[in-house]
Amino acid sequence: MQSMTERETPSVDGLVIAILGGTGDQGRGLARRFALAGHQVLIGSRSAERAQSAAAELGHGVRGLANADAAREAGVVIAAVPWEGHGELLSALAGELAGKIVVDCVNPMGFDKQGAYPLPVAEGGPAEGSAAQQAAALLPGSRVVAAFHHVSAVLLLDPEVDTMDLDVLVLGDDRDATELVQALAGRIPGVRGIYAGRLRNCGQIEALTANLVSINRRYKAHAGLRITDI
Amino acid sequence: MQSMTERETPSVDGLVIAILGGTGDQGRGLARRFALAGHQVLIGSRSAERAQSAAAELGHGVRGLANADAAREAGVVIAAVPWEGHGELLSALAGELAGKIVVDCVNPMGFDKQGAYPLPVAEGGPAEGSAAQQAAALLPGSRVVAAFHHVSAVLLLDPEVDTMDLDVLVLGDDRDATELVQALAGRIPGVRGIYAGRLRNCGQIEALTANLVSINRRYKAHAGLRITDI
Repeated sequence: MQSMTERETPSVDGLVIAILGGTGDQGRGLARRFALAGHQVLIGSRSAERAQSAAAELGHGVRGLANADAAREAGVVIAAVPWEGHGELLSALAGELAGKIVVDCVNPMGFDKQGAYPLPVAEGGPAEGSAAQQAAALLPGSRVVAAFHHVSAVLLLDPEVDTMDLDVLVLGDDRDATELVQALAGRIPGVRGIYAGRLRNCGQIEALTANLVSINRRYKAHAGLRITDI
Repeated sequence: MQSMTERETPSVDGLVIAILGGTGDQGRGLARRFALAGHQVLIGSRSAERAQSAAAELGHGVRGLANADAAREAGVVIAAVPWEGHGELLSALAGELAGKIVVDCVNPMGFDKQGAYPLPVAEGGPAEGSAAQQAAALLPGSRVVAAFHHVSAVLLLDPEVDTMDLDVLVLGDDRDATELVQALAGRIPGVRGIYAGRLRNCGQIEALTANLVSINRRYKAHAGLRITDI
């Protein structure tokens, strides 16, 4: 008998990945790692030109496109956009994103003299409370998964860093989709993709990024999380 | 020159520890581990008799007292009480807790068919938003620190478990107090006490317990957290 924890890991071979907001640090960092893992990666931006120039700088076959074109061509779309404008950008792409897995890795966060703190996500309806829930509410035709919140862009982009010592927490209500994103996380050397709950439990995962900022500041580190006993 | 990260670890030798709500699983588990580490531990309960009987069962010199008496005799007081009644209990003990370090480890959480989810903490004032912030607002004479949210009571109580593979995240606005609680966490074999931000960033740490419940359920584990790169 196959237990729940022994389901087969879905294959992500040949998966085309688009990264909206792919010209930012987080987006470029993820693009670089997935390209190194052999994926075709499309960087999306509001401006196709800026996307092309960021892609050229990254190399490894990464291509730059306008956000809508990147979304249309990809199997999985990662939203690595700033929190400001997150909702508008996703709404505008609802058509291109329909039927696809959309991975939200946005951290609604503010900064002041005392460091980082989570911004409350306006509860526009019963389905919000986090960036990922907002995405799910705005993209009823997509399968929204939340992941990659805590991955250091600095480490992703560092050519000296071959392997990363952290787990990616993956949240979502669609099991096949979360398992695919877990497998995708596992394409980054050292990383495990760990299921960490439904979307309704995503707010605290996004907000936890503020604690990692505090930890990094105190310990002069690029802190990551590992889940023990699994 | 001594850098910020090289401050001396404060000594916790001889520290008397009271645990309010010490007859619950989490309270008894922490009591057991601190008693094993050589501390005098006082279990507090609404009923002195129930506290005495839980203490007798634990052994290792643990004593049971009414909550107010336990608070009065201790140097550090851990609040391991249920979220329901948390505010009333602490208000009633504000006098006994004045001048002391109060460690809040309460997770405001609900459960339904889909598992655990965080309960919103009524924003009674600018200082709330988490159990620990509520404690700080109700105990202006105490130094409130938040810690021990994610430590599995099952593992704490398991006589076969000698060492625990996890970090305790410690939050607070008073540096001497957070460092003392970090040192206290380090008395549990295997555990590191890691500073993880100010009290305003505590809500997501409490809520994260819901994600650990999801992880435990999916992977049949007693999951803990480790912070990497420090």
